[in-house]
Amino acid sequence: MFSVKDVDDVKNLITKHFSGYDIGSQEVPITESLGRITEKDISASEDIPGFDRSTVDGYAVIAKDTFGASEALPAMLRLLPEVKVGVDVKAQLPDGHAAYVPTGGQLPQRADAMVMIEHTEDLDDGFIYVNKTVSPGNNLIYKGDDAKEGSVIIKADTLLKPKDIGALAAAGVSSVLVKKRIKAGIISTGDEIAGIEEALKGAKVRDVNSYSLYAGLIELGAQPYMYGIVPDSYEQIRRAADQALNECDLVLISGGSSVGTYDKTSKVINSFGEPGIFVHGIAIKPGKPTIIAKVRNRAVFGLPGHPVSTYFIFKVFISHIIEVINGLTHEFTIGIKACTAFNFPSNDGREEYVPVKLEKVEEKILAYPVFAKSGLITTLTQAHGYIKISRGAEGVVAGQEVEVVPF
Amino acid sequence: MFSVKDVDDVKNLITKHFSGYDIGSQEVPITESLGRITEKDISASEDIPGFDRSTVDGYAVIAKDTFGASEALPAMLRLLPEVKVGVDVKAQLPDGHAAYVPTGGQLPQRADAMVMIEHTEDLDDGFIYVNKTVSPGNNLIYKGDDAKEGSVIIKADTLLKPKDIGALAAAGVSSVLVKKRIKAGIISTGDEIAGIEEALKGAKVRDVNSYSLYAGLIELGAQPYMYGIVPDSYEQIRRAADQALNECDLVLISGGSSVGTYDKTSKVINSFGEPGIFVHGIAIKPGKPTIIAKVRNRAVFGLPGHPVSTYFIFKVFISHIIEVINGLTHEFTIGIKACTAFNFPSNDGREEYVPVKLEKVEEKILAYPVFAKSGLITTLTQAHGYIKISRGAEGVVAGQEVEVVPF
Repeated sequence: MFSVKDVDDVKNLITKHFSGYDIGSQEVPITESLGRITEKDISASEDIPGFDRSTVDGYAVIAKDTFGASEALPAMLRLLPEVKVGVDVKAQLPDGHAAYVPTGGQLPQRADAMVMIEHTEDLDDGFIYVNKTVSPGNNLIYKGDDAKEGSVIIKADTLLKPKDIGALAAAGVSSVLVKKRIKAGIISTGDEIAGIEEALKGAKVRDVNSYSLYAGLIELGAQPYMYGIVPDSYEQIRRAADQALNECDLVLISGGSSVGTYDKTSKVINSFGEPGIFVHGIAIKPGKPTIIAKVRNRAVFGLPGHPVSTYFIFKVFISHIIEVINGLTHEFTIGIKACTAFNFPSNDGREEYVPVKLEKVEEKILAYPVFAKSGLITTLTQAHGYIKISRGAEGVVAGQEVEVVPF
Repeated sequence: MFSVKDVDDVKNLITKHFSGYDIGSQEVPITESLGRITEKDISASEDIPGFDRSTVDGYAVIAKDTFGASEALPAMLRLLPEVKVGVDVKAQLPDGHAAYVPTGGQLPQRADAMVMIEHTEDLDDGFIYVNKTVSPGNNLIYKGDDAKEGSVIIKADTLLKPKDIGALAAAGVSSVLVKKRIKAGIISTGDEIAGIEEALKGAKVRDVNSYSLYAGLIELGAQPYMYGIVPDSYEQIRRAADQALNECDLVLISGGSSVGTYDKTSKVINSFGEPGIFVHGIAIKPGKPTIIAKVRNRAVFGLPGHPVSTYFIFKVFISHIIEVINGLTHEFTIGIKACTAFNFPSNDGREEYVPVKLEKVEEKILAYPVFAKSGLITTLTQAHGYIKISRGAEGVVAGQEVEVVPF
């Protein structure tokens, strides 16, 4: 017999069972690497920058030639021809000389500082008058200052963002080894479920979960596959699950809402062998009757048929397994700081997830729990996000500060 | 002569110039609608649910038949054959009768409440004994309770999330009219810029901005096009900009870092006619020398060549224009609550954006400003996000609570 497990225990079990899962890798151009996860450390192919580079418009100098220079007594340096951006400078700067270098330009050899143009005077007499002392290294970046050739610029297991892709480009990396997308199969079960293109007759309801799960999986960088709607029959559910297990890393079986279908899903999952189901009921609201299993080294979820329950199980556990398989760690909670607009009791011993609608009232953001008779799917469309009420808490009271997780 | 403008003034000018921009629309299947923006209100094609539906496993009854029922004196109701999920029930429930209906099943006609199975006893004598009073409407959802046919379920200008796509499926909506993706052209200028596949020689640096902008645009749902690297020549920059203006809604010209290139970009932009440049310098750090223009009814940005500056201008202003064109409003700030780990002065009269690295120390999240000599692009790879220091502030002090915007 299974006992209902805590949310954190379930997450830990998922981590235990699936960390180290080998998803495989592929090389992609950096233009297609947004949101992908690096398979291994990536090193710079070259020094960044590849030369000593000015960060200002001004004059390249040998710093010691400016020592003691002031408005009253400027240093007088003989001018060499100006350096153009992008042009490789072969010349050496002799003592007592300077050369104009624009931002981004290369410093002549022996130059070790830049004087900003604001601190100079050009009297058009072949000299430049520097009225400020500079020290070696001022207003320039040395070759390799940003990154040395061969140094790691992006670590393994990094979810690539635009800033990282910029850094890859800077380092001359045009393609990158990333983890393959997690293949996730979605099976919808239940005699009452009608496809989106079917005429809706009698006591049927639409297949909602296939579509919300599909979109949710894409949002997390996985590759979803729909296996369609399967009637409430052990053989047919097993056949669909068998195919999905052969083709995917993760299989989501959205259960019919009745007890009968739920039991069939459990039997099907356990028929695939060891270790089988390791979570059978979670102390979470909504979503309590959730099944999680490991069979054929794959993850299988038996999800409640109810769309809102399935949605929260996705947010809490499926997103977690995707992070685990991808080797990501969800380090910091991203949320919207708000105050609850009224009391919301919660004390039935489950961690509760409550959709909320937000409203800006003067400088404050107020969170209104979206109440709904049995959590109708369309109520979620009005909510901006959700709050979590932990198992021990008695609920939230009006005015309490909460962290709203945006949808 | 242009004066440097405040960040908020610039945002307001962008809104003024580009709200109402007609981006066009297209019909897409809901499986491809994630992250797209609805063009108009979307209504339910049918009632949800399409029938009176049980939310529990139990017995459909006529509520008044249970009035006064208790453990001591249960109501005795004659049993009709059980209802199966997904099966259209034609029968009417006579007075004094009940029928088993599983969760999700249809109530027989005349039934107006469900009694949970826990509150009944079945002695297998053809009757069911109900030991709790129920009221009309208990434990069921009426036809159309979730949404009525024709009622708006998703409003125009909504960025579609998985929950919304679920609601569309629930309402029998299989495809949806969304705004076209914003076409954004990227031009990189400067004689010092080398393409990612080129051998890097002498005083050249890699084209970073084309790649970080490309990825950033994709992340915001736009369709980026790269127009390559253009040398520092008025004619060539103008030719590339002309082509991009013909093909795109938004043109981003990443400037060379030198004053010369910057001036050429301004001249090119103004050569396309009225109203031309309306922002020429912003009180922001980094990113001050930014140009924003409206020509041929399109938006053009002249961006600083420096990758970190360009990155922040993207985050602050280009993301804003994308929202404006898409008709979105950025309602609530999403961030990570943290405390600054040390003092960071800022008082040069510009709104400052500071990349920060986060670290969890016990229950607190500490934010460390990532200092970098002239903001090297690789330093951004170490940062988790950034904080904003407003123009009036003197900076942040150690221990101050800040909202970190995640990258």
